Amino acid sequence: MADQYAGTDLGEQPPAPPPLPVLRWAEPPEGPVVVLLDQTRLPAEEVETVCTDVPALVRAIQTLAVRGAPLLGIAGAYGVALAAARGFDVDAAATQLAEARPTAVNLAHGVRRALDAHRAATDKGATPEEAATAALTEARRLHTEDAEASATMATAGLALLDELLPGGSHRVLTHCNTGALVSGGEGTAFAVVLAAHRAGRLRRLWVDETRPLMQGARLTAYEAARNGLPYTLLTDNAAGSLFAAGEVDAVLVGADRVTADGSVANKIGTYPLAVLAKYHHVPFIVVAPATTIDPRTPDGAATEIEHRPGSEVTQFTAPTPGATAGTGTAGGTPLAPLGTQAYNPAFDVTPPELVTALVTEAGVVSPVTRGGIEELCARSRQVTIS
Amino acid sequence: MADQYAGTDLGEQPPAPPPLPVLRWAEPPEGPVVVLLDQTRLPAEEVETVCTDVPALVRAIQTLAVRGAPLLGIAGAYGVALAAARGFDVDAAATQLAEARPTAVNLAHGVRRALDAHRAATDKGATPEEAATAALTEARRLHTEDAEASATMATAGLALLDELLPGGSHRVLTHCNTGALVSGGEGTAFAVVLAAHRAGRLRRLWVDETRPLMQGARLTAYEAARNGLPYTLLTDNAAGSLFAAGEVDAVLVGADRVTADGSVANKIGTYPLAVLAKYHHVPFIVVAPATTIDPRTPDGAATEIEHRPGSEVTQFTAPTPGATAGTGTAGGTPLAPLGTQAYNPAFDVTPPELVTALVTEAGVVSPVTRGGIEELCARSRQVTIS
Repeated sequence: MADQYAGTDLGEQPPAPPPLPVLRWAEPPEGPVVVLLDQTRLPAEEVETVCTDVPALVRAIQTLAVRGAPLLGIAGAYGVALAAARGFDVDAAATQLAEARPTAVNLAHGVRRALDAHRAATDKGATPEEAATAALTEARRLHTEDAEASATMATAGLALLDELLPGGSHRVLTHCNTGALVSGGEGTAFAVVLAAHRAGRLRRLWVDETRPLMQGARLTAYEAARNGLPYTLLTDNAAGSLFAAGEVDAVLVGADRVTADGSVANKIGTYPLAVLAKYHHVPFIVVAPATTIDPRTPDGAATEIEHRPGSEVTQFTAPTPGATAGTGTAGGTPLAPLGTQAYNPAFDVTPPELVTALVTEAGVVSPVTRGGIEELCARSRQVTIS
Repeated sequence: MADQYAGTDLGEQPPAPPPLPVLRWAEPPEGPVVVLLDQTRLPAEEVETVCTDVPALVRAIQTLAVRGAPLLGIAGAYGVALAAARGFDVDAAATQLAEARPTAVNLAHGVRRALDAHRAATDKGATPEEAATAALTEARRLHTEDAEASATMATAGLALLDELLPGGSHRVLTHCNTGALVSGGEGTAFAVVLAAHRAGRLRRLWVDETRPLMQGARLTAYEAARNGLPYTLLTDNAAGSLFAAGEVDAVLVGADRVTADGSVANKIGTYPLAVLAKYHHVPFIVVAPATTIDPRTPDGAATEIEHRPGSEVTQFTAPTPGATAGTGTAGGTPLAPLGTQAYNPAFDVTPPELVTALVTEAGVVSPVTRGGIEELCARSRQVTIS
């Protein structure tokens, strides 16, 4: 197998591609609107979706046109700003946005930040326009902070990788998509991979395709190709063979919620990877901004897991040019016999004892314990305040 | 989760469906031909493919129109009989057939049985017609033996399941397809599941979809639906959540090759299930006829693993009515960016220490050790001779 993937030139450094137009706020005359890159259409085509109101944004969130824990937070904050700028009921909009998807805690966090800014302005006697500006300013601040957090996590994650794997030529396996498509910056786990690549220390990125919605095949492979990474795609169930063959040096994934005890809710298929990593003594590293930590959820068992329609599993919908935006998950080709029920949780939970380290912009927690998480949260609040 | 799938009536017994026309030999005037149910078209439609010569049969084997370890053995034997009946070079045909796919040892075994019968007849002075009849008789014998083995494995497997899980209401997880579509009878692991269902002791069959070619979603779900089983489909990467939730009582899978030390080569994705089963203390049971055991391959590392085209992973091909027979794996919808390489081994290897028991028609081996396998092989030869 080594032969098959040999010949990667670690020194090769193609120029960085232009940033992806993942999410932007547009002022009049185009706006006020939130403009999203429709991720259900990737990699077939790069199409923007314009959300003129909160229901459109909620639909984009639910159909995964916009997705990924940190980006959901940013989208939620801009959603509140949009409702305020258009004169809609801001509280109702905030509730709709926060409840659009239940597992990623960042969504509710982003919504709350913009809402709190709006309320604080109103309480101080601001006009509706001024309060709307306050909400938008907060959304923009969150957007910038996330980009900064991304860069900090990339540095910290690479340092950890180098420490755990002194060989200096890393073969990393990842799951789902955690790059620029989920972030105000270059992402979470993928940002670390990118940093390793730029430092000439990425030998191979193994990309799990991530059924059922193929975020790995569609989005991570797309970002890897854009950035000139040495990457190879695999079905999720082929990861076991790579571990057994000693072809994986580390697993790097993101998170949708980290609970008080350090349990990690992330895309379905993360937990089996953590078990495989443990069995093969391979580091399993979670990279997520501090906003993903939810100290109010005590443990993994208390995490609400989103169950999505069985049709995502029983039917297949490929990203097709010309499809109606935001309908990527509806009406595919039948795979299974008619009437087949499917079990389709969008996330699973990895207990802290399977996580080697949690990398955040506020520091690295390793081993992952309740005390370590508490300490990180305290530090993170200081970071936010300073 | 228990609620979601509750209400299965364990006592319900729908009538058995008619047998599937999986593989048959046709005499003149239709033949001599081998007629196969084209498994690449299921479940969209039930279409037969007629193989008039060995190259057509080899193509059917390579495109997985006919597949599954025991059935490949039967197909190989009929292929030799076909070459003989049509006056082609029998030795060359046998070589082509035996090499059509490398991992399932049953294919080479079936080919050899028919070839040996043909040679023995020729050596005894038989005419070409008589030698062809001898090869066909041997293929038919193998076909019948496999059906008998299937019934014996079903009884033995259910007895083992009942012994391991005295509760009497089994939730079984399976991978790939191991039913009537792979066998002269009702299959291997699936035959055990069917026996449990008929005995009123199957609470749920969890069906892994089995990427990339979806044998679980397309074929096992199809057989489960035909037989009225309580089944639920899942993506391969969702199995971890079921284990973590305590929803899996046992894993039942087939095998493509069992080596002298008891290592099990089976469909890609089997090994991660075995690791998950070990981690969660769930029995992991392999069901396969004795012809799947290959005492000449010393261990798992020595097993040749078939690597299939990356396009099976980077593109998606759904079973479509009206598609050209046997082209089910070519020319699909792109999933990943152009130029994406994929790692696509068709099988993985599970070491014996992860296998709770190996169920064959010649007996059950548990724990799975080199000595146990040797003993079973000795017993199996007695069974064959008697």
